[in-house]
Amino acid sequence: MTLETVSTNRSHGGTQGVYTHQSAATGTAMTFAVFVPDHEPGAKLPVLTYLSGLTCTHANVMEKGEYRAACALHGVIFVCPDTSPRGDDVPDDEGYDFGKGAGFYVNATQAPWAANFQMRTYVEEELPAVIAANFPMADMARQGITGHSMGGHGALTIALRNPARFRSVSAFAPIVSPLHCPWGEKALGGYLGPDKAAWREYDACALIADGARLPDLLVDQGTADNFLAEQLKTHLLEEAVATAGMPATIRMQDGYDHSYYFISTFMAEHIAWHAQRLNG
Amino acid sequence: MTLETVSTNRSHGGTQGVYTHQSAATGTAMTFAVFVPDHEPGAKLPVLTYLSGLTCTHANVMEKGEYRAACALHGVIFVCPDTSPRGDDVPDDEGYDFGKGAGFYVNATQAPWAANFQMRTYVEEELPAVIAANFPMADMARQGITGHSMGGHGALTIALRNPARFRSVSAFAPIVSPLHCPWGEKALGGYLGPDKAAWREYDACALIADGARLPDLLVDQGTADNFLAEQLKTHLLEEAVATAGMPATIRMQDGYDHSYYFISTFMAEHIAWHAQRLNG
Repeated sequence: MTLETVSTNRSHGGTQGVYTHQSAATGTAMTFAVFVPDHEPGAKLPVLTYLSGLTCTHANVMEKGEYRAACALHGVIFVCPDTSPRGDDVPDDEGYDFGKGAGFYVNATQAPWAANFQMRTYVEEELPAVIAANFPMADMARQGITGHSMGGHGALTIALRNPARFRSVSAFAPIVSPLHCPWGEKALGGYLGPDKAAWREYDACALIADGARLPDLLVDQGTADNFLAEQLKTHLLEEAVATAGMPATIRMQDGYDHSYYFISTFMAEHIAWHAQRLNG
Repeated sequence: MTLETVSTNRSHGGTQGVYTHQSAATGTAMTFAVFVPDHEPGAKLPVLTYLSGLTCTHANVMEKGEYRAACALHGVIFVCPDTSPRGDDVPDDEGYDFGKGAGFYVNATQAPWAANFQMRTYVEEELPAVIAANFPMADMARQGITGHSMGGHGALTIALRNPARFRSVSAFAPIVSPLHCPWGEKALGGYLGPDKAAWREYDACALIADGARLPDLLVDQGTADNFLAEQLKTHLLEEAVATAGMPATIRMQDGYDHSYYFISTFMAEHIAWHAQRLNG
């Protein structure tokens, strides 16, 4: 697993790096960002992975997410993967909500997507191994996960399927049930085919209904988010956790929209929330 | 002075807006950004103007500057102008360091630049009037100014020429003496012509040598900044303030470069420094 350093910049008392490597999961080069706060030699720091939303690369949150000050304060490594495989040989769709920039953190089973769109394996298995092998200060026994929109969906479903791996889970404006929104129907139908039974492991509400649990959960959702009513449907998650009796803090934030102006506002609180559970 | 609202986003307990208006100074439409923290009805808040560097618009610092949390904390309005006139009819240069995106905060006297490149008048006179007329919570009696690189040059020279207007002045990696660097020689030569006597009012070190003073000054400069030795030459400002006996805090920041990864790291400290002087 050879890692190539694309760039490093000193920032907020740490190092913001961008790296690329050849991915076995996707069959393409994959680029990701990692922020490592300054630390004592030999120290081990917890790892918080942030999964981005539709159309994003690693760079959107790296530039607009305002996470570095809080990560430096709490001593947390912040990992930002891309949202899909990239490259001229990778199939794509005309829409912004399918294909490149829209991997939905699933392992595709349908042609022509299955060859490259293996983002579940990439984020669940391959990227953590790359981090563990190349960042000796990363304590992979202390992992948290978060994300925005499609990436909130990714964070919730990955954590629900891997309850022992993540000590802390949060999301910003997540797609809580791809089974019940146009984005999800297009993406899961395209990547997984028409059998909706195969979709359930990629649907946070369905996973909870089927018995998966998280120890705790923090979600922020803006009330002025244009996607709330049709795509995000936060109320379905509220109903799912209530039915399951699962602890969750789901906050409706008055007047906030779907943008990084919203995410950056609550980023420091999310990182503090993760740090409390990861450093405890 | 009709102001058109391009966008508003709720962020960090305030409103991040983008506005456009027809400028008398430049003869073009001009776009700028303003962040207004939430405040009590009738309250008046101080105004901090941030001048951006080469190639930037209002948007770079708005997206990457990480100023909103500190402005909300301290109750400071943050104003971000563009760096030049824009439009198909505005003359331009092939270089990134002259013409569009590179107005250098001067009033050009040379053809074809003089018709539109009147950024000194725009930033010194017209934009403050637009802010005063359209943002009733803005207390124009309490103004501060800061900026990055070319915008640090702008902040220093505007403040040195208008000592009664600004209670607080700071800069990130400023061009301290356009008379003594390739960027400055190209820009001032192009906009003002070959007579270097006309350049001195656009050179912070020359203004200080000629008797202008600031009550106080904060400058941060990264030691890993690729432009430090050839263009920025912080030592010339250190020498100028020492010779003048002018109070100044000039900090060399180990390992930081010229990017917004550097600026965002020290933004909160600069805003706190301004707020102390603006709210005192």
